[in-house]
Amino acid sequence: MKRTLSNECKNKVGEKVNIKGWMNQLRELGKINFLILRDRRGYIQVVIEDKNQIKKLKDCQIGTVLSIIGKVQKADQTDLGVEITEPKIEVITKATHTPPIEYNKDEIHANPDTILDYRPIAVRNKKLQAVFKVQSTILKSFRQSLRDQEFVEFRNPVLLEAASESGADVFEVKYFDRKAYLCQSPQIYKQIMIGAYERAFTITPVFRAEKHHTSRHLTELTHMDGEMAFVDDYHQIFEVCEKVVKDVFNAINTENKKELKLWKATTPKLPKGKIPEIKIKDALEIIEKRMGKSAKRKLDLEPEDERELCKWAQDKYGSELLWVTHFFKDKNFYTWNDPENSEESLSYDLLCRGIEWLSGTVRIEKYEKLIENMKKLGLDEENYSGYLQAFKYGMPPEAGFSFGLERMTQKIFDFGNIRQATLFPRDVERLSP
Amino acid sequence: MKRTLSNECKNKVGEKVNIKGWMNQLRELGKINFLILRDRRGYIQVVIEDKNQIKKLKDCQIGTVLSIIGKVQKADQTDLGVEITEPKIEVITKATHTPPIEYNKDEIHANPDTILDYRPIAVRNKKLQAVFKVQSTILKSFRQSLRDQEFVEFRNPVLLEAASESGADVFEVKYFDRKAYLCQSPQIYKQIMIGAYERAFTITPVFRAEKHHTSRHLTELTHMDGEMAFVDDYHQIFEVCEKVVKDVFNAINTENKKELKLWKATTPKLPKGKIPEIKIKDALEIIEKRMGKSAKRKLDLEPEDERELCKWAQDKYGSELLWVTHFFKDKNFYTWNDPENSEESLSYDLLCRGIEWLSGTVRIEKYEKLIENMKKLGLDEENYSGYLQAFKYGMPPEAGFSFGLERMTQKIFDFGNIRQATLFPRDVERLSP
Repeated sequence: MKRTLSNECKNKVGEKVNIKGWMNQLRELGKINFLILRDRRGYIQVVIEDKNQIKKLKDCQIGTVLSIIGKVQKADQTDLGVEITEPKIEVITKATHTPPIEYNKDEIHANPDTILDYRPIAVRNKKLQAVFKVQSTILKSFRQSLRDQEFVEFRNPVLLEAASESGADVFEVKYFDRKAYLCQSPQIYKQIMIGAYERAFTITPVFRAEKHHTSRHLTELTHMDGEMAFVDDYHQIFEVCEKVVKDVFNAINTENKKELKLWKATTPKLPKGKIPEIKIKDALEIIEKRMGKSAKRKLDLEPEDERELCKWAQDKYGSELLWVTHFFKDKNFYTWNDPENSEESLSYDLLCRGIEWLSGTVRIEKYEKLIENMKKLGLDEENYSGYLQAFKYGMPPEAGFSFGLERMTQKIFDFGNIRQATLFPRDVERLSP
Repeated sequence: MKRTLSNECKNKVGEKVNIKGWMNQLRELGKINFLILRDRRGYIQVVIEDKNQIKKLKDCQIGTVLSIIGKVQKADQTDLGVEITEPKIEVITKATHTPPIEYNKDEIHANPDTILDYRPIAVRNKKLQAVFKVQSTILKSFRQSLRDQEFVEFRNPVLLEAASESGADVFEVKYFDRKAYLCQSPQIYKQIMIGAYERAFTITPVFRAEKHHTSRHLTELTHMDGEMAFVDDYHQIFEVCEKVVKDVFNAINTENKKELKLWKATTPKLPKGKIPEIKIKDALEIIEKRMGKSAKRKLDLEPEDERELCKWAQDKYGSELLWVTHFFKDKNFYTWNDPENSEESLSYDLLCRGIEWLSGTVRIEKYEKLIENMKKLGLDEENYSGYLQAFKYGMPPEAGFSFGLERMTQKIFDFGNIRQATLFPRDVERLSP
């Protein structure tokens, strides 16, 4: 008999159907028993009155996989409006162990580390499923938005010959008789690619050997990176990114209504017009004023600064997103300084709900200037020969950006910890499951 | 002045436009000079008669980035049907070095290793651009096809605590004070995920520390992996995969006509009905007959066997794709044997144009059976505790598949070497660019 999915039963009142799924709940009241079956579309109630049928579930724990043939009946008190009666039950896979966490309840009441330890079953929970369905929508709509804007997707390598940039915080790989390093950023490759396509993007794991034990750090992350040629003004990058953000929010609000509702979550509020922007030097003044602390000429914002600036943008512009630009001279070799103020670099972060979602810079496209900067910083040109090729043979003015998938997911649900938005997080301690 | 892209000029005959791009060719005939400008949409001819303008290009090499304001004129002899006349040229980025490979020609005449050494500029070549545009279409349409079939995309980790399966050919990472390993396959994670979603997929780098120097081996590859629950018969997986293949071919034929034409490439021929299938034992008989060599009870096919079988399928069924099934007992612990013949495993490869595009198996979903098999093989349960969790607490019958992105790309263009279908290939020798 062909399988009917839980939500398809609505249209089959009075018919006999074969449903299949996991036993998510069993209430045994004696004469009448209620079983909730879970499948990929949702949950359906099965009413069991026949003793011979309930006997089949003896010693079956939550998670037991069942095939049930029964009749669809109207049942107004249920979510679906229907239930299954007169069931004939077949046990497909008997689960004989009681789950160590109650993933089948609406909420898993366990500490966060326990949930991560039991992620393989925790992810069966309705609310946790919702989180990673939204993440799946982010991936899809991010790519679609960039494709709509003529960006070409490409695959960057993860294994590198030389550690990128400073060489700090990089993981080393034993590569036959020599060493390789894990990619910290696909930037080199996306810059190379725009020499061909003008606009390129990649979604890739990146790795940071950071020993931080914080709610924001992981050693393996997913970056969603774009790069664009013929950028005369970094506001062209802002336009691209604002469209991405809007497209992602629209997709979530269209496709994940149920998932958002489960968490009472909303996508961040966008302003009517463009996302507001502020230079770091002005942002620091606001932080001084609002927080009463000295915040002079810092290279980077602290977490509490980012939170305060987001509050400010919300107060002043009704926007949960804010561009912070013109960070003080960065130590990297590839970012242009503002031609009008060489103290400030042409760099930008997009903050949202108290955290950085995106960072990017306007890149130096002039070969001679790159060489000059690398010399100043004592970098070995040899390690960048592939990268430098792209510039030696002609590169237009260009800029790029990098979104963090886990941070976006985290803040859509307003989670306190990035691990809640990561299926299998990796950090100093955690390398499994 | 707003930029006009090359192919938009067709609709602006008689108008003044600003085009921007790379100098791809310059023919100086004295009084009249022809410049070909490349942008993301294509190529456009610029006719330069003014001495002062041609002077600006003195010492400018191929790849120099230009902004040109000029008039659009009809020009029937050109590909676009229009050209730019009376140009005012501005040099945006002067390229002063002659490219070491002539990527601006229709074909790059250089040996394959040289092309890989100069990949950052080689990829600017028209035909190479086409290859990776098709690859981009494969990525997109593969995902769309699986999403249409209710598969949920997820992100698997690449850093693992324990080497998967045998532990051979795995890359070791220095992970703070201990060791980690690079993912050889996302299988464990996709199996975990179907406990939640029933159907899940991921596109991920995988790593193989293989010392082979062949045209088919790389150390870093892109796998496109799917897994599906409630599979009663592996033909349900075949249906999913055949839809994927059809959707990918349709997308390429719709969106990449120009790219295919450049290479005189065609997507592989599908049969009218289903893709033919053959058991390995019968396949080996055919190999014996057609190749006159002994081919008894081999665990795996050799490259020449795969090529011969594809010829056979083409001859017999008019299909360039062929399923080979029921490989003799595999050494892995997670694959079911055929209940009707315990010598044969429920496994399958999809061959296409002489190479394996996909492999997969029907998985053992019974916890006790997994434990039993692991003991037989001397595997440490501890290393699989996350994986085993998913089965301990109830898993339906299930099966999965894994496509190789580079191989699909390779065979669509019928390349002899997988490196031609990989932007930045990694192998025993090559770790850059």
